[in-house]
Amino acid sequence: MLGLALTFPFAATAENGIVHDAEYYILEAQHGEVWASDDQTVDARLAEFRERNGGKPPNILYVLVDDLSFGEMGIPEMNYIRGSQTPRINAFADEGLSLMRMYTEPSCTPSRVALMTGRHPVRNGLGEVKATVAGEGLATEEVTVAEVLSDNGYNTVHIGKWHMGDIEQSYPHNQGFDYASFPIHQQVLLGFMTPESDASQAMQGWLPGSSNDPFALDATFKPDGLVYSMEGTRGELAREVDFEAGERWTQAHYDAMHQKYQTETIEQLQRLSAEDKPFFLQYWPLIPLEFDRTRFDTIETANGGTGVESLKQLDKWFGDIIDEVDRLGIAENTLVVLMADNGRFRQFDSTLGFSQTIYRGGKVDTSEGAIRVNAFARWPGMIAEDTLAGDMIHISDLFTTFARIGGAKDSISTDRIIDGLDQSALLLEGEGPGRRDYVFVYGTDNLAAVVKQKFKLELPAPGLPGVSAKVYDLYRDPGEQSPLTEIALWASASYQDIIERHMLAAQAHPHSDVGRGHPYSGIENLRPESKTMVENFMSWQKN
Amino acid sequence: MLGLALTFPFAATAENGIVHDAEYYILEAQHGEVWASDDQTVDARLAEFRERNGGKPPNILYVLVDDLSFGEMGIPEMNYIRGSQTPRINAFADEGLSLMRMYTEPSCTPSRVALMTGRHPVRNGLGEVKATVAGEGLATEEVTVAEVLSDNGYNTVHIGKWHMGDIEQSYPHNQGFDYASFPIHQQVLLGFMTPESDASQAMQGWLPGSSNDPFALDATFKPDGLVYSMEGTRGELAREVDFEAGERWTQAHYDAMHQKYQTETIEQLQRLSAEDKPFFLQYWPLIPLEFDRTRFDTIETANGGTGVESLKQLDKWFGDIIDEVDRLGIAENTLVVLMADNGRFRQFDSTLGFSQTIYRGGKVDTSEGAIRVNAFARWPGMIAEDTLAGDMIHISDLFTTFARIGGAKDSISTDRIIDGLDQSALLLEGEGPGRRDYVFVYGTDNLAAVVKQKFKLELPAPGLPGVSAKVYDLYRDPGEQSPLTEIALWASASYQDIIERHMLAAQAHPHSDVGRGHPYSGIENLRPESKTMVENFMSWQKN
Repeated sequence: MLGLALTFPFAATAENGIVHDAEYYILEAQHGEVWASDDQTVDARLAEFRERNGGKPPNILYVLVDDLSFGEMGIPEMNYIRGSQTPRINAFADEGLSLMRMYTEPSCTPSRVALMTGRHPVRNGLGEVKATVAGEGLATEEVTVAEVLSDNGYNTVHIGKWHMGDIEQSYPHNQGFDYASFPIHQQVLLGFMTPESDASQAMQGWLPGSSNDPFALDATFKPDGLVYSMEGTRGELAREVDFEAGERWTQAHYDAMHQKYQTETIEQLQRLSAEDKPFFLQYWPLIPLEFDRTRFDTIETANGGTGVESLKQLDKWFGDIIDEVDRLGIAENTLVVLMADNGRFRQFDSTLGFSQTIYRGGKVDTSEGAIRVNAFARWPGMIAEDTLAGDMIHISDLFTTFARIGGAKDSISTDRIIDGLDQSALLLEGEGPGRRDYVFVYGTDNLAAVVKQKFKLELPAPGLPGVSAKVYDLYRDPGEQSPLTEIALWASASYQDIIERHMLAAQAHPHSDVGRGHPYSGIENLRPESKTMVENFMSWQKN
Repeated sequence: MLGLALTFPFAATAENGIVHDAEYYILEAQHGEVWASDDQTVDARLAEFRERNGGKPPNILYVLVDDLSFGEMGIPEMNYIRGSQTPRINAFADEGLSLMRMYTEPSCTPSRVALMTGRHPVRNGLGEVKATVAGEGLATEEVTVAEVLSDNGYNTVHIGKWHMGDIEQSYPHNQGFDYASFPIHQQVLLGFMTPESDASQAMQGWLPGSSNDPFALDATFKPDGLVYSMEGTRGELAREVDFEAGERWTQAHYDAMHQKYQTETIEQLQRLSAEDKPFFLQYWPLIPLEFDRTRFDTIETANGGTGVESLKQLDKWFGDIIDEVDRLGIAENTLVVLMADNGRFRQFDSTLGFSQTIYRGGKVDTSEGAIRVNAFARWPGMIAEDTLAGDMIHISDLFTTFARIGGAKDSISTDRIIDGLDQSALLLEGEGPGRRDYVFVYGTDNLAAVVKQKFKLELPAPGLPGVSAKVYDLYRDPGEQSPLTEIALWASASYQDIIERHMLAAQAHPHSDVGRGHPYSGIENLRPESKTMVENFMSWQKN
C-alpha cells in the first residue's frame, strides 16, 4: 500500500507553499524522498554556481520560436529528410540538453501564458485571444515569471511576439518587464494582411479593391486601423513605433519588424550583460512564419518553402545571438533555452514547405503534432553537453524552474494552482529525475486529452462512456492512428480518477477571470484610424 | 544546348565497358568531366590505401538488417520518439557516413538481388519469390558481387538470411561465396509458423490441431517438411543442419538460429582476418523480426514491442561485431556498411512496436516508407566520421561500388544492364558527388514510380493519361499525401521521356529468365518429409 496522504489538492504543501494540481501529489507521495534528495543536489550546485558568479544567479535567455513542428530544428537527420537547414541550432543542441518530451499548449497565446504564469491558460481565461481587437488579455492579478524574477533582482526585457492581449494591463512592460518591444497582434495580421500576400493569393478579402470588395456594405467588418509595433517601459505608457497615420501595412514593414527585433535582441544582450544585475531576456521572433515568396532573392534550401527558407534565416540569426553571448563572455553564467511554442499550422504547409512528419496534426488541434516541440537548454558547466532526456516536461514547468534557478521560488504565488513543476533536477542532472508523468491537454477551455506517461487518452464526446475513449501508445503509435480499445477498457477508469482529481482541485482553487479593458488602452500615440476602429468596437461592447 | 551524345542505351560506353540504364547517360553527358576528375581522386586514394595495406584492397563487412523503417536506427532522437534503444548503431553512425537517401527495392528478395547483381530484379525475374517451395531462384547466369570479388582475390562468406531461391544454383555457396550458413526460407516460415506463434494468436491455420484444422481435407495445402537451416561450401552439396527428421519447428529453433548466425559471424571475422586475402563477409541477421513476447524475460524498452526489444538485441550484437572488428585490429582496412533491406511490414506494427513515422507506408508497397532505409558506412581514415550525405543512392549501387573499391570493376559483366552506379566518390569524398538523381521503383515486374531528385511520380493506372500521375515533393511532403497537379501538368511529359528511354534500354538488353529447378535440389541430407513435400509439388509442376 502506498498510503497516499490524501490532503491534496485542497491545501498548500511544504514545497515553498506552492499549490500544484492534484496529480502532482499522487507522484510526490510516491517519490517525495527521492525528490528531496535531488533538491539538495540541485541547491548545492546552484549555491556553488552563485559563489563562482559573484553571489548572483545566472542570466536567462529564453528564445521561443513560433509554430514549428517537432523535428524541424536541432536534428541534422531531419534537415536531410525535409530539405531544410538549421546548422546553428543543431550545433546549439549539441552544446546542451535536448528535451525530447516537451509539451506545450496547442497554440500561441495559451503556450505563452503557460510559460509566463506557470498555469494552464484555462485558469486565467486565455485559452485563446481574438485575432483583431478584443479588449481582453493577461490580467494584472496574474503573476508572471518576469515579475517573480524582477522582484528578486533581475533586469527583465521582452523582445518580439507577445500576443497576450490588447489592453494596458496585459502589455509586457506592465507584466514584469523593464522594457519591451513587441507587436500587439500576431502574424496573421502582420504577414498575411498585406498587399503582397493578396497578390500571391495567400490571403483574400482584406485588401481594399481586391476580391471585388466583398464587404463593401459594412466598412467596419474589416479591421482598419490596427496597431502594429509597440515599445514600452515599465511604469510608462506604450508608444506605437515605425508606422505613421494613414500608412498601409506591407511586407516591407513586416520584414523590417523581424530585423528590428533581431537587432534589438543583440543590443539588449550587450546592454544587459554590462549591468551588475542578472538578466531575464526573452526573444520571441516572428519568423519563420513568412508567406511572401518574392522576398527571397535565391532559394537556398532543397525544400524551398517560404517557411523553410525563413527558418534558415532564423537559424542564422539564432547563431548570431549565441555568438554574441559567447563573445560577451557570458556563456557560462547564462542559461539559454530555445524551443517552439506549438506545432505548425497544417493549413499552410504547402506554401511554407513544412508538413506533418513525425507527429500527427498541428497547431489548434490537440494531437502530439500540436503540443510536442523541440526544446534545448544550454548552460556550460551546469548542463551536460550533447545529451538528451526523455522525461516529460510542460512549458509551464519553465516558470517554476526559472524561478528556482533564479533564486526566486519564494515569490511564486501560493494562493492559486501553479501547474508548472520544478524541473531543475532534470535540467541540471540530466535524464531521469523528471517530476511529471502527466499532461492535461486543453483545446481552449475544454479538457481534450490526458497524457499519462506512455499512453494518451483522448476524451470521448459528451454523452459517450469513458471506455469509448481513444487511448494511444505514444511510442508505438506516435501518429495517434490506432486507438487501443483493450487498454481503454481498464485504463479509462484510472484516467477518470485523474480527471476527477483535476476538477476537484479546480473547484478548491477556481479559475480567474481574463483581464478586460478598453482595446488599445495605454498607448500614448494612438492613430486616428485606430481610435475609430476602437470606437466602432466599443459602440456595441459593454466593457 | 547540351549536345547529348544519344548513343545510349544501346552500346557499352567507355566506363570499363559497363552498360548502364539510359538515364545514367543523360547525366553522364552533363557531368562526365566532373566525374572523371572525381574518379581520379578516388583512384589515387584507393591506390594509397592499397599501398598502406600490403597491396590489398580493404575487407568489406556488409550487414543487412531485415525490414526496418527509416528512422529506426542510427538517430538518437528517434530512439526517444519511438521508445527504442539503438545506442551501438547510433555510435557507429557517428563513426562514419550516414547515407540519408538510400533507396532499396520494396521487399526482401528484390533488395537482396539488387545488391548481389547490381540489377533491378525485374531484369532477372526475381521481383518476388514464393514463401514456401518454389523451384525458382537466382540463376547461375547472374553474376554476383561475391563472384566479382572472389574472382579478384577475396575470401567470401555469407551468414544469415538469403531468400533468393530454393534451387541448387541459387544457394550462396553456388553464387560466389566460399562458405555460407543460411536458412533457405524467410522469417514468416521461421518465426511465425511455430506453436508459440499459434498460441499467441499471431498466426492461425498452420499448426495441426489448432484452428479446428481448417485444411483437413487436403494434407498437401499446408507446407509440412520445410527445410530450415543450411550450410554449404563452394563446390559441395548443401547440408541441412540443427534439425532432425520428424521434429517440429519451434520458437526455440528460431532463437537458436539467431544466436548461431551471430556467433558464426564473430568466428568468421576471426578466421578471415587471419587470412592473407581480403574478405567480403555478409551478415544478414533475421532479427528484429520476432513475434514471441514470452521469450523476453523483462522488457527493457519504453516501447516494449517484440520487434523493438529484438532491435535492442540486434543493436547489442552489432556492437559486439564492431568491437570484434576493432579488437582484431582490422578497423582501418575494413569497410563496414550497415543498412536495412526495406521498410517495415505495417501489418505487424502493433505487435512489433513499430509504426509509420517519417515516411508513409512500408514493405511491399512503393511509397518512400517501403524503399527508403537508414544506411551507414564506416572506414576509418577513408570515410569521414560523423558526416551525413543527402545524395541519392540505390542498393544496387553498392554492387558496383564494392567492386570498384575491391579493385574488381573489370570483372563486372558488360553484356547486360547494370543499374548499380559507382558511388565510390560519394562514400570516400562525402556529400556532393553522387551520380544518381533518379530511381525506378518497381512493385514486382511493374514499374510503379519514378523518382527524379526531389519529385516522385507515381504512374497512373493503365488507361489514364500521363498528366493524371501523382507527383510528390519528397521534402515538403515526405508522407506523399498531397500530389501536385500543377507539377504533373508539365513534368509528367519529362517523366514519360525517362520511362521511354528506360524501356528502350530494356529492349536492347532484354530481361533474363529466373533460375528454375527442382525445389530443395543440391541438399545432401533432405529429410523424408521434405522429399514428400517436394514430390507433391513436382507432381503438378512442369519443370
